[in-house]
Amino acid sequence: MAELSLSSRVRSTPFTNRVSEAGVKGYTVYNHMALPTVFRSLEEDYRHLKTSVQVWDVSCERQVELKGPDAGLLAQMMTPRDLSRQKIGQTIYTPICDDRGHVLNDPVTIKLQDDRYWVSIADSDVGLFAKGLAIGAKLNVEVFEPDVHPLGVQGPKADELIARVFGDEMRQTPFFGTQTREFGGRTHLIARSGYSGQGGFEIYLSGSNLGEPLWDALMEAGRDLDVRAGCPNVIERVESGLLSFGNDMTSENTIAETGLHRFCKTIAPDHVGANAIKTEGEPKRQIRFLKFEGGPMSVPTKPVSLFSGNAHAGRVTTAIWSPDHKTNVAIGMIEAPFWDAGSKVTLPDGREGIVQAGPAARQ
Amino acid sequence: MAELSLSSRVRSTPFTNRVSEAGVKGYTVYNHMALPTVFRSLEEDYRHLKTSVQVWDVSCERQVELKGPDAGLLAQMMTPRDLSRQKIGQTIYTPICDDRGHVLNDPVTIKLQDDRYWVSIADSDVGLFAKGLAIGAKLNVEVFEPDVHPLGVQGPKADELIARVFGDEMRQTPFFGTQTREFGGRTHLIARSGYSGQGGFEIYLSGSNLGEPLWDALMEAGRDLDVRAGCPNVIERVESGLLSFGNDMTSENTIAETGLHRFCKTIAPDHVGANAIKTEGEPKRQIRFLKFEGGPMSVPTKPVSLFSGNAHAGRVTTAIWSPDHKTNVAIGMIEAPFWDAGSKVTLPDGREGIVQAGPAARQ
Repeated sequence: MAELSLSSRVRSTPFTNRVSEAGVKGYTVYNHMALPTVFRSLEEDYRHLKTSVQVWDVSCERQVELKGPDAGLLAQMMTPRDLSRQKIGQTIYTPICDDRGHVLNDPVTIKLQDDRYWVSIADSDVGLFAKGLAIGAKLNVEVFEPDVHPLGVQGPKADELIARVFGDEMRQTPFFGTQTREFGGRTHLIARSGYSGQGGFEIYLSGSNLGEPLWDALMEAGRDLDVRAGCPNVIERVESGLLSFGNDMTSENTIAETGLHRFCKTIAPDHVGANAIKTEGEPKRQIRFLKFEGGPMSVPTKPVSLFSGNAHAGRVTTAIWSPDHKTNVAIGMIEAPFWDAGSKVTLPDGREGIVQAGPAARQ
Repeated sequence: MAELSLSSRVRSTPFTNRVSEAGVKGYTVYNHMALPTVFRSLEEDYRHLKTSVQVWDVSCERQVELKGPDAGLLAQMMTPRDLSRQKIGQTIYTPICDDRGHVLNDPVTIKLQDDRYWVSIADSDVGLFAKGLAIGAKLNVEVFEPDVHPLGVQGPKADELIARVFGDEMRQTPFFGTQTREFGGRTHLIARSGYSGQGGFEIYLSGSNLGEPLWDALMEAGRDLDVRAGCPNVIERVESGLLSFGNDMTSENTIAETGLHRFCKTIAPDHVGANAIKTEGEPKRQIRFLKFEGGPMSVPTKPVSLFSGNAHAGRVTTAIWSPDHKTNVAIGMIEAPFWDAGSKVTLPDGREGIVQAGPAARQ
């Protein structure tokens, strides 16, 4: 393992000082931005996330703002999921595809106004895709990155902490619904969402200068809840069935291979990949969850081939030991003949895995 | 400083095992890929680069391949630099701009055939911009990332090493010219280029499986030249006047602010930002090299404000102690009233800097 060399190109966030003071031990880079990966240890962070509440610097979930008369059209051109009934303030999980139906990202799209959207992105420059489409198709829309930085509040005590800081009515926020609240003289969107299965919120901080005051307010209000700095935890995310773009799926994969086509029952005709997706037919491989017995596995640094006898059965993209499940939980892209629940597959070192149920993802 | 957490999303390269065996101590992430930043120490690597020859894993300079009847048109839509006289095999430094003339990347574009180009990119997903433009404008062109991984050979003994492995005729390659050579049964493009001022080549390895054999062949042939694993070195790059996209310029900057407009004497009318660039007028700020006296500075992790008295004079984006120049060499975006050579500017801690000559960049 080597150190991460920081420079301006790997962008800091409004919370970087606080993250550093909290003793962050590991980072990754996500959307050209530092994203914490571990504070105490993967397992200690995991246990705490599942029992208390954590504050996560997920600024790297950058917003791509679409603003102007064609904002809605551009949002729809990017995703096959039908946005025609999206309400103002509603967030929708929207796989982004190209003209071949390959997946370029899996953001949530937030409709702020009829002519104003935020696409809250996973790790690829969706803003450049949006800009290219808008310029190429001569749309009347601006595409830019606003000064907005999501801060996650995740864990079973997240409702309590958010209620203390932003009012008891926050508890009524439906899953993927939003409310707006004042803090530091500005208005911030707060959504019931987040990249864990433990429940919680994401505060879309508007205005970098308010980052440290917001962090401090949450830490102060949650002291007796044992609130801590945290981050997306790979053990918890696999247990909770959350996929990671770049790990479990890439632009090499069609939407049917990722299983995300199930979010797109009606393929929006304005989507640039509509024809490709409608005519694709059955995928030859698809994402599955797996379990691997034997001793603890570490997260693979590249996809690892799976076999069934001598046949290529797919690739494991994420795997990690789960203390609660007392097995290794994993995600892989599994070839059709081997993707039924109960199928057995083998790693190059002979370790045996069992295919679990079909795909799931952040919704 | 924290560790870099590796996963499949931060992609390995065909040379990662060799880089690791060579004792890499630091990484950054560049185009979703691990890029080494230091092997022994910044200063030891620097001294060696300026006296011997190094092999650099710069796979992260990903290729965006444009293929089809509209490949040339798409390449030209992305850059203001006139490509109409580009010859097959020629590489050209091509700032990429959007419709407002803001800089999205600063790659080299290689014309492989009349209907086939590689755009060899800095750190942003230019492939998504190209895809968006192609889809939006209904161009007849494919956009994809080929299995190509650049390996740099840099330093004063690079010609000797390349000649030993690929033949003496390689010495005749002009700056930014290319030749093709066989290795391991495949044909590879080799360009006289690279991200240092010490001279050298970049081998565009075609076929990941040949990565380790190529690395080993160079190391074996260069043993008596004291060849070592190396990487772009921030001290050497600033001394040599090489800009870094994401550090010294971002998509916030117009091409005139970056100074890269000097490569675009004729603004190609097919470029999407042609009108914006032609009508921009004089920039209000521009990139300058600077020197800062006093003790050694470290690379800033975010841009640092500069002052002239109480006035905002610009921002330092890169700064580092140069052992040879015996001063801190730096790059900054300097406001017009202060950008003349000899102007004095001050950091928040009172350290004084002197503005040097105008901009320069990888050509």
